[in-house]
Amino acid sequence: MITLTEATGTVGAAPLGAGVPLLGRANPLRDPRDRRLPRIAGPSGLVIFGVTGDLSRKKLMPAVYDLANRGLLPPGFSLVGFARREWADQDFAQVVHDAVEQHARTPFREEVWQQLAQGMHFVPGDFDDDQAFEQLREAVEQLDTSRGTSGNYAFYLSVPPRFFPRVVQQLEKHGLAEAPPGSWRRAVIEKPFGHGLASARALNALVHEVFAPDQVFRIDHYLGKETVQNILALRFANQMFEPVWSRSYVDHVQITMAEDIGIGGRAGYYDGIGSARDVIQNHLLQLLALTAMEEPASFDAESLLTEKLKILKAVKLPEDLGEHTVRAQYTGSWQGGERVLGYLEEDGIDPSSMTDTYAAIKLEIDNRRWAGVPFYLRTGKRLGRRVTEIAVVFQRAPYSPFDSTATEELGSNAIVIRVQPDEGMTVRFGSKVPGTSMEIRDVSMDFAYGESFTESSPEAYERLILDVLLGDANLFPRTEEVEESWRILDPIEEYWATHGVPAKYPAGSWGPPEADEMLARDGRSWRRP
Amino acid sequence: MITLTEATGTVGAAPLGAGVPLLGRANPLRDPRDRRLPRIAGPSGLVIFGVTGDLSRKKLMPAVYDLANRGLLPPGFSLVGFARREWADQDFAQVVHDAVEQHARTPFREEVWQQLAQGMHFVPGDFDDDQAFEQLREAVEQLDTSRGTSGNYAFYLSVPPRFFPRVVQQLEKHGLAEAPPGSWRRAVIEKPFGHGLASARALNALVHEVFAPDQVFRIDHYLGKETVQNILALRFANQMFEPVWSRSYVDHVQITMAEDIGIGGRAGYYDGIGSARDVIQNHLLQLLALTAMEEPASFDAESLLTEKLKILKAVKLPEDLGEHTVRAQYTGSWQGGERVLGYLEEDGIDPSSMTDTYAAIKLEIDNRRWAGVPFYLRTGKRLGRRVTEIAVVFQRAPYSPFDSTATEELGSNAIVIRVQPDEGMTVRFGSKVPGTSMEIRDVSMDFAYGESFTESSPEAYERLILDVLLGDANLFPRTEEVEESWRILDPIEEYWATHGVPAKYPAGSWGPPEADEMLARDGRSWRRP
Repeated sequence: MITLTEATGTVGAAPLGAGVPLLGRANPLRDPRDRRLPRIAGPSGLVIFGVTGDLSRKKLMPAVYDLANRGLLPPGFSLVGFARREWADQDFAQVVHDAVEQHARTPFREEVWQQLAQGMHFVPGDFDDDQAFEQLREAVEQLDTSRGTSGNYAFYLSVPPRFFPRVVQQLEKHGLAEAPPGSWRRAVIEKPFGHGLASARALNALVHEVFAPDQVFRIDHYLGKETVQNILALRFANQMFEPVWSRSYVDHVQITMAEDIGIGGRAGYYDGIGSARDVIQNHLLQLLALTAMEEPASFDAESLLTEKLKILKAVKLPEDLGEHTVRAQYTGSWQGGERVLGYLEEDGIDPSSMTDTYAAIKLEIDNRRWAGVPFYLRTGKRLGRRVTEIAVVFQRAPYSPFDSTATEELGSNAIVIRVQPDEGMTVRFGSKVPGTSMEIRDVSMDFAYGESFTESSPEAYERLILDVLLGDANLFPRTEEVEESWRILDPIEEYWATHGVPAKYPAGSWGPPEADEMLARDGRSWRRP
Repeated sequence: MITLTEATGTVGAAPLGAGVPLLGRANPLRDPRDRRLPRIAGPSGLVIFGVTGDLSRKKLMPAVYDLANRGLLPPGFSLVGFARREWADQDFAQVVHDAVEQHARTPFREEVWQQLAQGMHFVPGDFDDDQAFEQLREAVEQLDTSRGTSGNYAFYLSVPPRFFPRVVQQLEKHGLAEAPPGSWRRAVIEKPFGHGLASARALNALVHEVFAPDQVFRIDHYLGKETVQNILALRFANQMFEPVWSRSYVDHVQITMAEDIGIGGRAGYYDGIGSARDVIQNHLLQLLALTAMEEPASFDAESLLTEKLKILKAVKLPEDLGEHTVRAQYTGSWQGGERVLGYLEEDGIDPSSMTDTYAAIKLEIDNRRWAGVPFYLRTGKRLGRRVTEIAVVFQRAPYSPFDSTATEELGSNAIVIRVQPDEGMTVRFGSKVPGTSMEIRDVSMDFAYGESFTESSPEAYERLILDVLLGDANLFPRTEEVEESWRILDPIEEYWATHGVPAKYPAGSWGPPEADEMLARDGRSWRRP
């Protein structure tokens, strides 16, 4: 434990950050319009396994600081790192400090930092090291006393999935998984949640041997994004969208997550997994579920799960997977004025790899609302630009009283939810062209998060870590969803493994011609976002 | 007739303006995307009675020039002025020239002007002067020969309504109302179309004694506005608005035409007429009809009339006119940093006048689509700012899965069609506020005509004069509509004439408190546009 002589201990009622040094005053970083019960975490600590990794430094540490800075952490909040490094607490604190300075969203405030740093602790060891886990247990108990964490701990497994079983077993073995009476223990795990349905089931079984379902928080960081949460607000807090949100008016839905980068240094992780497992199984199927689901009875985890699960269970694969799915690999090309390598030329990639860096699939949803409406999902690396969006494309008006020549440039209405970047929404519709004839052309109207709100959006990880500490499971996929998602993807992966080879697309393009043909066969085309 | 030695006659096939001097090239002022049959008027002329008036100088003359400049007038187009002035053709041409220079929308091009000026002719005289009308007949015949107008003439009665009967009779008497075989004669009249149902019927009877219904073009310049025509494009060329355009989803509709100016020099016209007769009877009831009507079988005058008429006939007045109508007069106050007079203090106004300068009424439409949905219409002079808009205000979402505290600042969805100024459309809806709670607040998305189209909007009068020359009656209210509108307004005017006195509102405000109370009784409130 670090003791900083210049800071005074403040184990008390005021949340961390809010109390120091603005004791008795509202925290200027809290949203002044937020008149709901303040969502401030109670006494608790966070243990991060794999604390030396990229995710930890770029996302988790900054998120913890930002939460503290916003006054949303308890005064005695403790952060424990676990990794195979010979670090003292101070060394760990310095690493966190650097990560926060470099990556935090909110301004650095020394007094917030000081109070946070007092609760930092580091346990060196590897996952087989019983002594290290004993040390962790002791540290946690000591923090309960010195910082008032009250036995409430979340264990964040920021480690490759092959280590999940070991860490979970060790937590159980050393009595860390079981909470003392009146307190809680939670496990946070990151994707991939398995490599297919069978391995996902095995993983889930293993995790749930130790942790009950409501103790496990699976991070799909897309669900922490403001615009993703806003899908539900748009649909269910408004009156004008929901009536047209069905097969009666919608022609099809396109869900796109495009990245402009390649695999970077992640060859070891990526090869053999590919874009469909990496993105469609989790992010895109979750976006599909939120876009298509019925209104939940209330906005709690159980009700949301019920509705999302109904959608995932109703998802139907096309009969002919050869016609309605496409996977591909990027080839070397010029992108943004720079020569970039093809996937098979990347460091660490087997030149005969069949792993997909692009995937496009067509799904349908067998229920009353959506029957017959295709949902086209696509994702890829090294595409034209980085963008994630959901486009609900409407049917053309069934009849137009205007001359067909006057409406020939008219597309279909569309509501596009821009998940990132430029978060917001665009509505495309037809409007009269100024002039003395009744010519009609597509125009669009736009809502931009950044222009409409002075509040800046919290990072997804801020939201999600706070939710873990609060025990709010709304935004975390549950076992059943993970398994249903694999049920959808498995036959596709199996088909791909046994039929043909990945198509090719030049880096910087919008995917292979095969993907365009896939939509053309349905008389449709991809949006160029 | 003016002969300008420096201009060559160009009686031929090329439209005026388009041919000179860009012979053989596309006119740069024509919309290059307009691939429909070019709406260019055939051989014709326009005769304006009351050509010395404000309307003529500020709107009609510039509109004629702008049409010529856009290449939409025939090469031999002729403009004949009729008024009680001792002007030669040259004097008249000079007046037109000055009016064009000052008020035209498109740039002044000498060559267009020269060709237009060749077809200008002035007939001095008053409306009782048989000789003048004989002279007019001769002028028209001569222009048929010299300019090739082919006997096609529109007579624009830009004169106070008390002169309508006389002018119409004279046109008949001197054989001007009847077209030679194969050609046409049309009469254009401006509001007011009567002072009430009885006088409107008398006026219509009189006009139709001489002109058939399809020869009469009643100008409601609001219908010439782009955004008004766009109401139909929005509703019927799109798929996503029409399904929610009904009592199932709409709570109420507000149609507002607010002026910030007073009556100016129009005391003689305005007093005894008032805001309801001046604006509601024509503009606002037409906007109501376009907003509420069913889809027409096609976009022609007859089909539009059929649907608008169905709405006007279905309009139901509130039983208690005292509760659901308000009229008022502005009182002296400060407006825009300036002291302005109250209505009763204006020059030429009887200090005991009961004329309304503000009127607000509630109507309902007795049909399957709209039953029970109030349409609130209001208009006034000396209001907060100049704005005309149609706001379709939706019901609140029937149920929200979110906490009520999270949605307390949420209003109703609304689609607002901004007729003027800042022509366009705004959609108001609820969106999640960035932050870690599910708080929802109203935001809006916007479509602005000016930003979405490079084409600039023609003036309403350009559109309408061209339509008259083309015989396209789509945008002109017909006898039946005028009479139905008076049927709606008459009982209100009668009630006002026999109950109480006008309320008062300070110039620059948004109307009298009585109007706010009128909506408050229904649990609603006026928009502050």
